[in-house]
Amino acid sequence: MITHEDVPAAARRISGLVLRTPVLEVSPGLFFKLELLQHSGTFKVRGAFNRILSAGALPAGGVIAASGGNHGLAVAYAARELGVRAEIFVPEVASPVKVAGLEALGAHITQTGAIYSEAAEAAAKRAAETGALAVHAYDQAEVVAGQGTTGLELMEQTGGVDTVVVAVGGGGFAAGITLGTSSAAAPSSAGPRIVAVEPERCPTLHAALRAGEPVPVEVGGVAADALGATKLGGLAFEILAGPASGARVESVLVSDEAIVAARRTLWARHRVAAEHAGAAAYAALLSGVYTPAPGERVAVVVCGSNTDPATLTT
Amino acid sequence: MITHEDVPAAARRISGLVLRTPVLEVSPGLFFKLELLQHSGTFKVRGAFNRILSAGALPAGGVIAASGGNHGLAVAYAARELGVRAEIFVPEVASPVKVAGLEALGAHITQTGAIYSEAAEAAAKRAAETGALAVHAYDQAEVVAGQGTTGLELMEQTGGVDTVVVAVGGGGFAAGITLGTSSAAAPSSAGPRIVAVEPERCPTLHAALRAGEPVPVEVGGVAADALGATKLGGLAFEILAGPASGARVESVLVSDEAIVAARRTLWARHRVAAEHAGAAAYAALLSGVYTPAPGERVAVVVCGSNTDPATLTT
Ligand SMILES: Cc1ncc(COP(=O)(O)O)c(C=O)c1O
Ligand SMILES: Cc1ncc(COP(=O)(O)O)c(C=O)c1O
Repeated sequence: MITHEDVPAAARRISGLVLRTPVLEVSPGLFFKLELLQHSGTFKVRGAFNRILSAGALPAGGVIAASGGNHGLAVAYAARELGVRAEIFVPEVASPVKVAGLEALGAHITQTGAIYSEAAEAAAKRAAETGALAVHAYDQAEVVAGQGTTGLELMEQTGGVDTVVVAVGGGGFAAGITLGTSSAAAPSSAGPRIVAVEPERCPTLHAALRAGEPVPVEVGGVAADALGATKLGGLAFEILAGPASGARVESVLVSDEAIVAARRTLWARHRVAAEHAGAAAYAALLSGVYTPAPGERVAVVVCGSNTDPATLTT
Repeated sequence: MITHEDVPAAARRISGLVLRTPVLEVSPGLFFKLELLQHSGTFKVRGAFNRILSAGALPAGGVIAASGGNHGLAVAYAARELGVRAEIFVPEVASPVKVAGLEALGAHITQTGAIYSEAAEAAAKRAAETGALAVHAYDQAEVVAGQGTTGLELMEQTGGVDTVVVAVGGGGFAAGITLGTSSAAAPSSAGPRIVAVEPERCPTLHAALRAGEPVPVEVGGVAADALGATKLGGLAFEILAGPASGARVESVLVSDEAIVAARRTLWARHRVAAEHAGAAAYAALLSGVYTPAPGERVAVVVCGSNTDPATLTT
């Protein structure tokens, strides 16, 4: 089991290795947590560092992960900083730009499988052979606790909020933030409301809540490269849909159009250069899918910047 | 005369109208003051608000400024927020994109004169006719004090630094920061060192220090649209070159190549989308023109984001 006490422990473990990303109050009571300024461009390094550092002595095989995107970049970054060998398995469809990014971080790349799940299978097989430490993108306790340090930080930086709006893929980030914000809240409080935002075309949490368990969904749309996990993680389900979560976690869907508009506004009005997944949470506010009450203090986590900046104005 | 007490007074005056822009500690003791996330994309709104609000009742003519760039955007933004009429005089060479930006803010534009100084002359003439309040880009006490609030804030946010690195055009920003940082420092301390950075091709402070007074210089290069004042302001000269400044203010020059490289690094490594002028201060560090001592706490002011993001990776 993972509890909210694991989050401050993770924060101590990864302190000095990750950035304490800044918070910007864009209007009274509306905060952006600028996690897109994090090393490697996303919060994913928090989980990666916490997972690797929790393992104690590392196997000679180093660490291994499957990802064509932000998770791979984060694991490669963390491994390089810790002087550990990293093997990243990416599907054959992965963009050459992303593969080049991984190579620049010194990772050993294996391109295999037509889709992500085939690359993941190959990585698991390889890990069994080499004994390398597998770092999962979202469904490991140390990863969830690491991501949750974002929530702990934002509570400290804002002096507390009523609501945190956060994007969901496999759910590790939102689950971690649910734990991290409650670990920071006063003992008498359950912690802020969590608005868990998914693209309509990547509805893993939504589908899991309906089915009563994580179920596979079809994924697509503008943010699928980062939010396109095909099934919610088991840990995330426990935390986001478990008996204690009911009153706190609200699952909402946003359209691709709303994500595109939010990403444009983040650049045009706020000079924040987000990838689509990084703009999904803000899309829920901007499109009115989630409307705060008067006086409600809201933090929006802007969580990813791995994007071609030339596309910010198009 | 303007003193460092004018800066906290300005901070109180403009509070709630400008953003408290965030500070990011990118490595131990190295801070970025992310002033490029400010309304209108630069610190220039600080001075504009302070100048307008200091005037008390505004003339029917509203406010007037000459600028083809960031100053004009800032005055137009501040005027719109305060419900005041703004007239902006821009030279005929101003880019259509900038003129469109001014129009979007509701300003009344007059395009006149082949170069900036001709537009400025026309604006002065018009102000004399209409009685509009002129907002200078850098050489007015209220403008200098307003820009200085950036320095006050960064001292509070960092808990104090040894050195602030800041770009110079007409010098209002660096002068304000010199006052603002000393107003925040302990009474026994003069305040941090100010590293005043200019492009080699826009050396107004450098030339003024040599000549013993502000003198006209030829300007050009990648950052001239924002740092290309042709002469240092008189107030800036007093503050940056006056008898009390000697030990504190260091004037350095950076090449256009260093600015371009710093701007690229800001994006590639830090996901900060700066215009060239906004990257000039960081260029002094990155190129080694200014090398901090071991343990020295340094704040770099990243001060402008009015740029086409498509050019960040080129
Ligand atoms: C930028 C960004 N935001 C959000 C997410 C979603 O995180 P999780 O899969 O833990 O829900 C990801 C996952 O890759 C991401 O890269
Ligand atoms: C982005 C940016 N940085 C720095 C400056 C320089 O300010 P100052 O003219 O007060 O020295 C300017 C002036 O326009 C600017 O726009």
